[in-house]
Amino acid sequence: MSDKFNRFKEIIGEVSDLGRAASVLGWDQQVNMPPGGGEARGQQLATLSKIAQEKFTSDEVGRLLEDLKKEYPDSETDEGAMIRVAARNYDKAKRVPPEFVAEQAIAATKAFEAWVEARQKSDFSIFQSALEKNVELVKKYISFFPPADHPYDVLLDDYEPGMKTAEVQEIFGNLRPKQVSLIKAISEARQVKDDFLHKKYNEQKVWAFGEKIISKFGYDFSRGRQDKAPHPFETTFSVNDVRITNRFEPGSPLATLFSAMHESGHAMYEQGINPAYERTPLEGGTSLAVHESQSRMWENLVGRSLPFWEHFFPELKKTFPSQLDGVSIKTFYKGINKVEPSFIRVNADEATYNMHIMLRLELEIGMVDGGIAIKDLPEIWNEKMREYLGITPPNDAQGVLQDIHWSYGSIGYFSTYALGNIVSAQLWERINKDIKNLDEQIRKGQFSELREWLREKVHKYGHKYDPQDLVQKVTGSKIDSAAYVRYLTKKYGDVYGL
Amino acid sequence: MSDKFNRFKEIIGEVSDLGRAASVLGWDQQVNMPPGGGEARGQQLATLSKIAQEKFTSDEVGRLLEDLKKEYPDSETDEGAMIRVAARNYDKAKRVPPEFVAEQAIAATKAFEAWVEARQKSDFSIFQSALEKNVELVKKYISFFPPADHPYDVLLDDYEPGMKTAEVQEIFGNLRPKQVSLIKAISEARQVKDDFLHKKYNEQKVWAFGEKIISKFGYDFSRGRQDKAPHPFETTFSVNDVRITNRFEPGSPLATLFSAMHESGHAMYEQGINPAYERTPLEGGTSLAVHESQSRMWENLVGRSLPFWEHFFPELKKTFPSQLDGVSIKTFYKGINKVEPSFIRVNADEATYNMHIMLRLELEIGMVDGGIAIKDLPEIWNEKMREYLGITPPNDAQGVLQDIHWSYGSIGYFSTYALGNIVSAQLWERINKDIKNLDEQIRKGQFSELREWLREKVHKYGHKYDPQDLVQKVTGSKIDSAAYVRYLTKKYGDVYGL
Repeated sequence: MSDKFNRFKEIIGEVSDLGRAASVLGWDQQVNMPPGGGEARGQQLATLSKIAQEKFTSDEVGRLLEDLKKEYPDSETDEGAMIRVAARNYDKAKRVPPEFVAEQAIAATKAFEAWVEARQKSDFSIFQSALEKNVELVKKYISFFPPADHPYDVLLDDYEPGMKTAEVQEIFGNLRPKQVSLIKAISEARQVKDDFLHKKYNEQKVWAFGEKIISKFGYDFSRGRQDKAPHPFETTFSVNDVRITNRFEPGSPLATLFSAMHESGHAMYEQGINPAYERTPLEGGTSLAVHESQSRMWENLVGRSLPFWEHFFPELKKTFPSQLDGVSIKTFYKGINKVEPSFIRVNADEATYNMHIMLRLELEIGMVDGGIAIKDLPEIWNEKMREYLGITPPNDAQGVLQDIHWSYGSIGYFSTYALGNIVSAQLWERINKDIKNLDEQIRKGQFSELREWLREKVHKYGHKYDPQDLVQKVTGSKIDSAAYVRYLTKKYGDVYGL
Repeated sequence: MSDKFNRFKEIIGEVSDLGRAASVLGWDQQVNMPPGGGEARGQQLATLSKIAQEKFTSDEVGRLLEDLKKEYPDSETDEGAMIRVAARNYDKAKRVPPEFVAEQAIAATKAFEAWVEARQKSDFSIFQSALEKNVELVKKYISFFPPADHPYDVLLDDYEPGMKTAEVQEIFGNLRPKQVSLIKAISEARQVKDDFLHKKYNEQKVWAFGEKIISKFGYDFSRGRQDKAPHPFETTFSVNDVRITNRFEPGSPLATLFSAMHESGHAMYEQGINPAYERTPLEGGTSLAVHESQSRMWENLVGRSLPFWEHFFPELKKTFPSQLDGVSIKTFYKGINKVEPSFIRVNADEATYNMHIMLRLELEIGMVDGGIAIKDLPEIWNEKMREYLGITPPNDAQGVLQDIHWSYGSIGYFSTYALGNIVSAQLWERINKDIKNLDEQIRKGQFSELREWLREKVHKYGHKYDPQDLVQKVTGSKIDSAAYVRYLTKKYGDVYGL
């Protein structure tokens, strides 16, 4: 490797270290930090972010990249891919002044604290001005870029490189009528029982059961851990230290199991990336949609399937004998797949989940193009909930305040969840062609062939391929909702006898 | 304030942010990090340390300091003190190449992991080569400085600015015969009972009792927290996020209480520093000895006193009725002050504690001047234990592997513990002149006047005054063992009826 390439790797390595140090500080902020610590932590995160930005956007990096693009033109090689990804990030980062990055980090820390309090007190007004500030900064961010077809494109591109607002609107537009008619058919079918999911379950036992499941999946606890936080998330400090968080809500106690499976899907992706990509532009998953395809797959396509519970239900029943007394596996399976319009996105069933995303996408587009005033969000949120799902959140905590994302200024993120659902089904069809007896393996609690397939076909590549290219490479087509519609139709046909 | 001063504060603020971010990573490494995380964490810490060093030792900072020394010559002002402290640190830091700092950080991370394993397996050979590397780097560090009276002076100066090896040897030389004759007199007196301290105590209850005590002391849990770690320590992420760690050893269950008091003493010092000093060279306590004077005071002068237990013993007895059945407060008080040669420094009684320090000082001096080979440490350690305390550690874990310090390359640190004992007694005599009814207050569980005295006279100044100047300012004399000898003589006269 050339001296220039080595110098490039040295600088990029330090930028990575700063970013991952910031991830440790961010994780600590949500898992451990005492209330007093917020202000200084915001300052520390701002400094790390500013220095990383300064280092990455230095003229030296610009010169190196210009030279290295010529030296490593083939992005099928690791080196070429590193240069390609770094050059794109460089072009983006050069547009954003370091002072702005620092300002945004400080605002995000303050907004996070406001959101925590607002959510606890279920009072949007506590969060409003901090969110206004975050949105103002997001608009300023957009202004650094050349005019796009839609200002929201700029945000989307950060999470899903190359994807346009119009494309997502089209995918959602195609999917919506099918999903709506499915929900309608379900609402007219005979309803399933799920009272046993809302009994009192012992928190520690649920937590331990979740850890048992994800250990079997292959989440490596010697290279990770699970902690409590207000919101489940996955965060990466290195390929060998990939952590997840989770929570326990007495109202839906077994949601903790599905959150664990979900976050372990993200974490196994990160744990499975080629270690040679550490401290390079190829570290980390390639996009949020692909990331979400992994979490959703383990949570839903595996974790809410009948074969999965054929393996785990006997043990669950042994662990919670009174709660599951008289509940058959078929009843349990139907219960955990019950379709019912509900308030909280992360607890929503697969049939209604995407409606939550469509709602958020419309709100975000409105915030960004000025069509919606922040102060009106709670009302508009509630109106759209009535329109899409026919229910009205009883309070802000169960409405507009439920998600963490806006608190840290993250706008443009939500639609990737729905795209992740779609990709997970595309991958699943491909996997079932390659692993003929997958259901049987799952029924035996064997997940290693599935996990290795994902590692070989998806995980190990890290950031090497852009999401659309990766999906094409693995499944033979670009992101497309057909497989997802087939999956939902079959599954709910089964559960609801449609 | 001048533009130059503002620019100086901006850079120093970022250097502080990097250091405190590193503290978060270091804390996480000991409290939470999964085994796989070590290598990347070492790299991340090395990068943070390297960037901080680069920023601080930039030519710009050098030029600013030259100008600001003239602009703010009076180090009685906060600004003048900031410039004075920064200029001294700058002169030191300029001597140490950034690559060396990074190398030392990586070695420390590896050595820490080796030490954890070596200690678990009680096998020094697992740690030996990592310690050799650490010592080699310490010698290289010394070589960056002008020749001192003794090479060890260079190390000592980092922890106790201005203190010489010869001075410490003299202080220890004066103290040793008095402490030895006290130990001898005690050994010939009627022994005290402490079997009740070695019964089985419930860990959670001990932990909670410790937290109750330190809350009453005034350790502010809204600006800190206590976690489990292999070794108790205090670490500061900001004046509003000062954390402590602790451990529970079934063999001496109540040691957890005294460790909590000890670390809370460090933490209250940090929590009590003038918030205006945040992100400046005056943040943090002024020296390890002064820091240790605070921890020792709360642990020993307060926490092992009769008035203290007159307040807390009834509740302790209620919490542990079977363990303390038939134990009078006088018996308990004598028991917790029992003098007995023992293996573990942090659990040693006040009468023998300094002997542990003298042993370590001699070993460290030998490691640094080459008089002692690392491979011989376990044997020499054990020989000196026989010589000073008449006992032989049964294994390395209870001998040479017991302390964390050498694992992260910290040599020159230990004597500050004994100096801290000495300073604590000097302060205590002064406090008891200012607060006439202190014993009575403690007997009532009232600690706020003591804490406020410490805050006003010691804590709030942070790094403003050098340790000798601060001790002089508060007590009227430099560091001097007379008060400590008076304290020990009176206390053990009381406990052992000498």
